[in-house]
Amino acid sequence: MAALYDVAAIGNAIVDVLASADDAFLKAEQLDKGSMRLIDEARANDLYSRMASGVEASGGSAANTIAGVASLGGRARFVGKVATDTLGKVFTHDIRAIGAHFDTQPLTASPATGRCLINVTPDGERTMCTFLGAAVRLTPSDVTPAIADAEILYLEGYLFDPEEARAAFAKAAATARAASRTIALSLSDAFVVERHRAALLAFIDAEVDLLFANEAEVCALFQTDFEAAVAAARGRVKIAAVTRGPRGSVVVANGANIKVAAEPVVRVVDTTGAGDQYAAGFMIGLASGRPLQDCGRLGSIAAAEVISHFGPRPQTRLKDLAAAKGF
Amino acid sequence: MAALYDVAAIGNAIVDVLASADDAFLKAEQLDKGSMRLIDEARANDLYSRMASGVEASGGSAANTIAGVASLGGRARFVGKVATDTLGKVFTHDIRAIGAHFDTQPLTASPATGRCLINVTPDGERTMCTFLGAAVRLTPSDVTPAIADAEILYLEGYLFDPEEARAAFAKAAATARAASRTIALSLSDAFVVERHRAALLAFIDAEVDLLFANEAEVCALFQTDFEAAVAAARGRVKIAAVTRGPRGSVVVANGANIKVAAEPVVRVVDTTGAGDQYAAGFMIGLASGRPLQDCGRLGSIAAAEVISHFGPRPQTRLKDLAAAKGF
Repeated sequence: MAALYDVAAIGNAIVDVLASADDAFLKAEQLDKGSMRLIDEARANDLYSRMASGVEASGGSAANTIAGVASLGGRARFVGKVATDTLGKVFTHDIRAIGAHFDTQPLTASPATGRCLINVTPDGERTMCTFLGAAVRLTPSDVTPAIADAEILYLEGYLFDPEEARAAFAKAAATARAASRTIALSLSDAFVVERHRAALLAFIDAEVDLLFANEAEVCALFQTDFEAAVAAARGRVKIAAVTRGPRGSVVVANGANIKVAAEPVVRVVDTTGAGDQYAAGFMIGLASGRPLQDCGRLGSIAAAEVISHFGPRPQTRLKDLAAAKGF
Repeated sequence: MAALYDVAAIGNAIVDVLASADDAFLKAEQLDKGSMRLIDEARANDLYSRMASGVEASGGSAANTIAGVASLGGRARFVGKVATDTLGKVFTHDIRAIGAHFDTQPLTASPATGRCLINVTPDGERTMCTFLGAAVRLTPSDVTPAIADAEILYLEGYLFDPEEARAAFAKAAATARAASRTIALSLSDAFVVERHRAALLAFIDAEVDLLFANEAEVCALFQTDFEAAVAAARGRVKIAAVTRGPRGSVVVANGANIKVAAEPVVRVVDTTGAGDQYAAGFMIGLASGRPLQDCGRLGSIAAAEVISHFGPRPQTRLKDLAAAKGF
């Protein structure tokens, strides 16, 4: 049955605080460059007090992907939990303003809306410390039958941490499966993979058609090197799309590896959201029936836009950008 | 006596919400492109509900200037009123994080921290609707004797609207005058000038050494054309610096007009904060005893940086940028 949406995503509803930092700051704060770490509210306030002047922008990995899907002209729906505070209102405004459907009930009690403190170093790398707050309070009751009304269900690996959210994933996957939808999962982070490898593999085997991962994540998942990990992914899901930063991506499907080049970028300003936008482009390609090579290229085009400026979501209409490149 | 600070500024403490818009949106909302309009909280919520996905960033005209002063390596102090809410905390964090001193007591009751809804059109022009909120509750008691501890006192013309804030200006000017400091005023907006022309002229005659204005503002002040307005300014203040967008600026002092070219910009993305940064560069030049031509050039360099990206404050360290250009 034709779906109302191209992509429905479930993920952490988060507002990003982006600030510039140097390597010495990361060292002083004992942060590993490029990593994502979960922190509590006290540590968030403490770290924030020492961070540089920032910019607040709606973020969240799958929510960024949904912004990309909408920017590419796709019909998108997002499920995630905010609180009824200022940042929650900002998140809600922004995701609706980009044209996505978002009607998850906000949390009226504490904790506050989640936020991700992102220190961006001059090399464009982002180091993230996330206070999940309300985001982690997503429960199966937030997943309604409407979740099946999208060609692709996209799940953010970060939500494998909280048990209730993982249960929400299971409910969403079962609902989508019953409607013969494509189920996609992003591994999100190598540490998520380390924490939940067995559960992730079981979920992938049972439910996942399309797996998104970067090099570190796919290697962590299969506890091996890149080539072997890609080979392992080939036997596990219908399609795997593995991103490799400036080296582009590898799409694995039907027993073959398709190499996709990265789109050239004049200057990498901030890599926040690169993987999220790659997934957006890829899924829009898939939902519109394009060959996998083109899906990967659309992913590369979307990723190139978001890393060329500060901030986690596209600032140029990706649909126009893609059209200018022949799509 | 040598001062602890280069610049102490009094202005509206505001958080900006920046979003892209097209001309049709401005028309539908009955907004004049490039203008600043005061709105109440209900209208702010209403307009926000129809604006595109945004980015939140600390703003406020004089506060942006202080950010520029600090970015240029200057010692800066800011006086302005926020509330004890999320946006107030963001504003406070950001201005302290850039290295400025800020200790104005926040408002513990309503109204909320002020915010400026900025719709940026593809031509880089910004159209602003400001809910002043707590900013307008600045009173003379917020101005302490420490205000005189800066070489230059910088006053934001927008604060001529509320009576209490205007009284705070008078107190600050008297305090600075007694310490033989330079007193600078930015006219802020042609509509501010229209509303308060007589009071502004009286204040300029009594207290102002250094006047910042753009073309529209100086013409509104003297109710005449550009050449005549510049001539009028010449007889009124020691120094007037009048900005003309891409046509650069004219610095009027000692009976002469000094023309300063605009700094070339590859692409104008968002003109928000151009005048604020010009003032920052100019005052840092003045505080370090440079010739007026160089003061203007430093203003142009700072303005060029801020209009080349989205957002009201510098994203590159202006001190390094100026050094690369021979300063």
